[in-house]
Amino acid sequence: MAASRESDMTEALLLDLSGVLYDGDTLIPGAREAVERVQRAGLELRFVTNTSQKTRAQLLQHLRRLGFQLEDEQLFTAVDAAQQWLKQRQLRPYCLVHDNIAEEVAVFDSGDPNAVLIADAAEQFNYHSLNRAFQLCMEGAPLLGVGYNRYFRSGGQLMMDAGAFIRAVEFAAGVEAIIVGKPSAEFFEQVVASTTARESRALMVGDDVFGDVEGALNAGLRACLVRTGKYRAGDEDRIAGDFAVVNSVVEAVAMAVDG
Amino acid sequence: MAASRESDMTEALLLDLSGVLYDGDTLIPGAREAVERVQRAGLELRFVTNTSQKTRAQLLQHLRRLGFQLEDEQLFTAVDAAQQWLKQRQLRPYCLVHDNIAEEVAVFDSGDPNAVLIADAAEQFNYHSLNRAFQLCMEGAPLLGVGYNRYFRSGGQLMMDAGAFIRAVEFAAGVEAIIVGKPSAEFFEQVVASTTARESRALMVGDDVFGDVEGALNAGLRACLVRTGKYRAGDEDRIAGDFAVVNSVVEAVAMAVDG
Repeated sequence: MAASRESDMTEALLLDLSGVLYDGDTLIPGAREAVERVQRAGLELRFVTNTSQKTRAQLLQHLRRLGFQLEDEQLFTAVDAAQQWLKQRQLRPYCLVHDNIAEEVAVFDSGDPNAVLIADAAEQFNYHSLNRAFQLCMEGAPLLGVGYNRYFRSGGQLMMDAGAFIRAVEFAAGVEAIIVGKPSAEFFEQVVASTTARESRALMVGDDVFGDVEGALNAGLRACLVRTGKYRAGDEDRIAGDFAVVNSVVEAVAMAVDG
Repeated sequence: MAASRESDMTEALLLDLSGVLYDGDTLIPGAREAVERVQRAGLELRFVTNTSQKTRAQLLQHLRRLGFQLEDEQLFTAVDAAQQWLKQRQLRPYCLVHDNIAEEVAVFDSGDPNAVLIADAAEQFNYHSLNRAFQLCMEGAPLLGVGYNRYFRSGGQLMMDAGAFIRAVEFAAGVEAIIVGKPSAEFFEQVVASTTARESRALMVGDDVFGDVEGALNAGLRACLVRTGKYRAGDEDRIAGDFAVVNSVVEAVAMAVDG
């Protein structure tokens, strides 16, 4: 095998979680070994997710139970980014979120809200809660969204994700959401800034052609689409840009490590 | 008053219902007399609505109880248009509709659906029902929507309308809905075709700058925005085009009758 040209070297690897490393409680074949390979090769590694059905602690526990070794600081979530954004501005959000993370956002004073946060609320999405979000936005409350994720895969089924409900409120109220997770360039930049790599030497690996791949490319990163998780044939044709398409995270890692 | 030039004459008047003639059970001041004036002047009159929280029979009853005189055939609804569209194609829709009209759409065989209809389902909009609509669209079922209505006014509050939920499913599934009511040009054309007037001599009067005004203009009708119902200051600046803005249906009728 030819030695990598220095200009091609990947220095940091950003891995999406669901659909790339696991599907629910099931590991994507070879994912754990692939991550270990990255660690042995000395590449900087970050785990990045828009998932908002689990707390940060639950996500870390889930990854470790599946055998992945990581430091707390290597995990970046859209919910973290949302909390940070709201705290910096001392806002009181109405939170349309999943029951699982209700406690995490309860740190905010939710009486008399002056902002709206929409995450993947699942069963909490109903007419009443969406209408409340809409009415607040009509009164001028900023609308925060975890990401424009269209759907995710769970138990073999495709399920609507938060992005669709963010679009619903945007459309009704005639506003544009501030996206704090993927595909926001600020989010990718924040993750890369935690490494020693430049954007152009960082590779994002994901199963979402919009949130992971297009978002990373727009932020100046490299990107790789995996054919696992929610991937559907033809997804690679839905966006423009120069990115790799591989069968799974195993090939993505091989590409990054071998150059 | 100068005599109208023939080229300016309005021959047919299309009136939106909620927000133009009434707000719930309350008449817009002067609305009944305005409609009577249209009838005395001999203009052709049609009542057109995207409302899908009431059946056709309930709408006719509501109008008559408020003192409006009309023939059944003068009322055109988006739900009628949807039923017609589905029947012509012999489709079996999954219907996300209001409890009130559930019986009207029950004429369709809803087992093993191969189409989706989204109307103003109100409390029937929830994660489960929207996700079912999304999954069917992902399998290729055509998505039918009553209209892209963003919100309506009820009991002094603005409430999210069907359009927002149609947008949510469109976005998640990556499809475009077929809109059967306003602002669909086909819908306006169908209404005007029931009169002897040409589109350019028909005037649409509504409180929705998108569905009523922009839709009518795109279909070649004249349009008039009223400052009642859901109207909010500045709405007239949200679209381009040549249309009138008046305080209420009373002024709209005066404009049409007096030329």
